[in-house]
Amino acid sequence: HTSYPVAVIPGDGIGPELVEAALSVLAAVGSRHGFSLSTTTVDGGAAAYLRDGVPMTPEAIEVVRRSAATLKGPVGLPEVRLPDGTEAGLLGGVLRNGLDLWANVRPIKLLPGIESRVRAEPGDIDYVIVRENTEGLYLARGRGVGNERAMTDTLLVTRHGCERIARYAFELAARRSGAPADGGHRVTLVDKANVLRSMFFFREVFLEVAAQYPDIEAECLYVDAAAQALVMRPEHFDVIVTENLFGDILSDLGGGTVGGIAMCPSGNVGGALRGDPARRSSHPADPAYFEPIHGSAPAIAGRGLANPLSQILAAAMMLDHLGERAGGDDIRDATSAALAAGDIQIRRDGSAIGGPDAVSRAVVAHLR
Amino acid sequence: HTSYPVAVIPGDGIGPELVEAALSVLAAVGSRHGFSLSTTTVDGGAAAYLRDGVPMTPEAIEVVRRSAATLKGPVGLPEVRLPDGTEAGLLGGVLRNGLDLWANVRPIKLLPGIESRVRAEPGDIDYVIVRENTEGLYLARGRGVGNERAMTDTLLVTRHGCERIARYAFELAARRSGAPADGGHRVTLVDKANVLRSMFFFREVFLEVAAQYPDIEAECLYVDAAAQALVMRPEHFDVIVTENLFGDILSDLGGGTVGGIAMCPSGNVGGALRGDPARRSSHPADPAYFEPIHGSAPAIAGRGLANPLSQILAAAMMLDHLGERAGGDDIRDATSAALAAGDIQIRRDGSAIGGPDAVSRAVVAHLR
Ligand SMILES: CC(C)[C@H](C(=O)O)[C@@H](O)C(=O)O
Ligand SMILES: CC(C)[C@H](C(=O)O)[C@@H](O)C(=O)O
Repeated sequence: HTSYPVAVIPGDGIGPELVEAALSVLAAVGSRHGFSLSTTTVDGGAAAYLRDGVPMTPEAIEVVRRSAATLKGPVGLPEVRLPDGTEAGLLGGVLRNGLDLWANVRPIKLLPGIESRVRAEPGDIDYVIVRENTEGLYLARGRGVGNERAMTDTLLVTRHGCERIARYAFELAARRSGAPADGGHRVTLVDKANVLRSMFFFREVFLEVAAQYPDIEAECLYVDAAAQALVMRPEHFDVIVTENLFGDILSDLGGGTVGGIAMCPSGNVGGALRGDPARRSSHPADPAYFEPIHGSAPAIAGRGLANPLSQILAAAMMLDHLGERAGGDDIRDATSAALAAGDIQIRRDGSAIGGPDAVSRAVVAHLR
Repeated sequence: HTSYPVAVIPGDGIGPELVEAALSVLAAVGSRHGFSLSTTTVDGGAAAYLRDGVPMTPEAIEVVRRSAATLKGPVGLPEVRLPDGTEAGLLGGVLRNGLDLWANVRPIKLLPGIESRVRAEPGDIDYVIVRENTEGLYLARGRGVGNERAMTDTLLVTRHGCERIARYAFELAARRSGAPADGGHRVTLVDKANVLRSMFFFREVFLEVAAQYPDIEAECLYVDAAAQALVMRPEHFDVIVTENLFGDILSDLGGGTVGGIAMCPSGNVGGALRGDPARRSSHPADPAYFEPIHGSAPAIAGRGLANPLSQILAAAMMLDHLGERAGGDDIRDATSAALAAGDIQIRRDGSAIGGPDAVSRAVVAHLR
C-alpha cells in the first residue's frame, strides 16, 4: 500500500465542487489499486488574494513544491483585479513560472455520448496539445509597459524553452498509442513564422529537434491555418506543440470540438518528468499540477450544474504522473463507459445533468 | 455610365486565376448596372520580390494609392523568405501599414449548399470580424530582436488605434441588417485582459467607445473563450472586434465553420471610409483593397481546383466600397443562388468542382 502526498487547491467558483467530485473518484480508484492519497489542502486563487494579498502564500507554494503531485481546481474571479487590470487571483505566475512547470499537456478527445457541434465520431478527435508554459507572450504577464496613449507586451522565446518543449512533444508522440488515420505519429508545430521572427526562431529549433526523431513526422503550420484545420480536419492531428498563448487559444478551440472545455483536463509538468514519463513518484518528487483548462465559472457555482469531468480526467492524468497508470486508465475507461451508457449526460452548453455529484457517482459506478 | 479606376494585383499561386474569375463576374455586373472598371494591373508578392527585390515597387504602391479601390489576389510563397525567416513576398507591411488601412473587415457567413463541418444551417453563422490591421503583434513584423539564444517580438496597442477600430465596429453593427437570434446588435471585443496589460488597455478604450453607442450591446470575451464559442455557439455573434493577430486566428477559425477560408473575403479599409461607409467613390479616392483571407496555395495553382468564391465575394465588397452596393448585393445573391441550386459545388476540403472558371460562370448565370 503506497500513500502519495498530494496537495489540493480547491480554487474559486465551481473549483471546490469539482475537486470534491474528483477526490471521491480518486478514493474509489485508490482502494481498488491499493494506494491512497495523503492530501493537504491549500488556498490559492482570487479568494485567497482578497484575504492574504497574494494569490498563494509562500507556505502554500512550498506544499505544492514538496508534494508528489497537486490537484488544482479552476481559480480567478473576473472582478478581482490588480491596478493594471489583469486578474489578481491567477496562479500561472507563481506555479507555472515559479516552479518551472514548462509543459502544459492538454489532451483533446471526443468521448462517446457527447454531441459535438463538429460532425465527428469518437475516435475522430484524439490529439494532445503541448503548450509551452513559461514564456511566449505570457512572460509579459502584468509586465507590459506604457502610458495612457499606448501599451506594449513582449513575446519572448528562448532556445532552451523551445528545445525542451519540442523534445517533450516528440517523446510524447513516440509513446502515444494509436496514430492518426492519415499516417503514423506526427508532431505539428503551430507558429506564425511568416510574420514573427520569434516564431521563425521557434521553428528553427523545432526542426533541429525533429531531426533527432526520424521515425516521427514533423510538420509546421501557421496558427491561422491550424485554427481552421482543428475544425475541418481534427482527425489529422496527433501531437501539437506551440507557444504559450497559441496553446491557450487552440486548446479552448479544441475543447469546443469535443463538447466544451468542461471536458478538458491538463497537466502542468516539467523538470525531471521529461526523461522518465512513467516514473513512479516517491516523495519528495518533482512537482506537477493537474487542473481543468477552463475557468471558475462563478455564475454557476453551487447550482448543481457544473460538469466535473475536466477535473476527474485531470485526476486521471495525476495518477499517470504518480506512476499509477492503471488507475488513470480506469478513470478514463469508466468515464467513457458511463457516458456511452447515458449515465452521464452533458448538455450542449457543456454543463452536466445532476452536477458534480451525479457525475462522480456515475464514474465510480462504472469503475471495473 | 461611371468608370472606376481600379488597381488589380493578381498575386502568387492561385492568385491570377482567382482574380480573373472575379473580374469576369465584375464585368457582367457592371454591364447590368451601367458602370465599368478601368483596371491597372500591378505586380506584388513573392514573384515580384524575386524580380524586383521588393514585394511591390513604389510605383505600383502609388497606383493602389490613387485607385478608387484595389482587387488583390493572395500573395506569398513559403520558400521566398527574408534572411530572418519571415516571408519576403507579403504585402501587409507596404499596403496595410503603408497606406494606413487600419480596419480589416472579414464577414463570416455560412452559405446555402455548403456542408459545414460544424452542425449549422445557413443563417446560423453570420458575423463580421473587424480585425485591427496596423498594430498589435503585427507591428513587430520582421522587427523582432534577439540572438541565437532568444528572440522577442512586441505587441503594441495605442489609444488611437483601439479607438478608431472600436468605433468602426459599432458603426458597422449599427448599420448591419439582421441581428443574432439571442438579442439585438452586439459588438464583442475579444481580448486577453486577464493576463496582458495591453489587452486590458484595449478593453478600457473599447468600453469608453461603447458608452457612446447605448443602443448596441457591448461584450468582452477572452480570446480562449471566444475560440470555443465560435465553434459551439456561432449564432451568438454579430460584430467581433479584436487585435491584429487574434483577428488573423479567429477569422480562419470562423472560415473553418463555413466550409473553409476559400469562402471568405475581406476588405482592408480605413481613413475617410470611417465617417461615410456608403460614400460613392470618385477618383482620387481613399485607397482600400479587397482580397481573400487565405494564402496563395501554390500546390493547386493551375490545376482547375481552386475555389474563387473568396475572391468573387471580395469583389462584391469592393463594389460596396465604390458605392455600387446594388452590384455587390447582386454578386452575393447570385453566389447563394448558384450554391443553393447545386450549380457550384464545393468539396469538403474547400476546393471547387470545375475550378475558378466553372464557378465564375455559374455566378454570372445566376445574376438577375
Ligand atoms: C485563467 C487563464 C489565465 C489561463 C491561461 O490563460 O493560461 C487559462 O485560460 C488556462 O488556459 O489555463
Ligand atoms: C499571409 C499572412 C501574412 C496574412 C496575415 O497573417 O495577415 C494572412 O493570413 C491574412 O490573414 O491576411
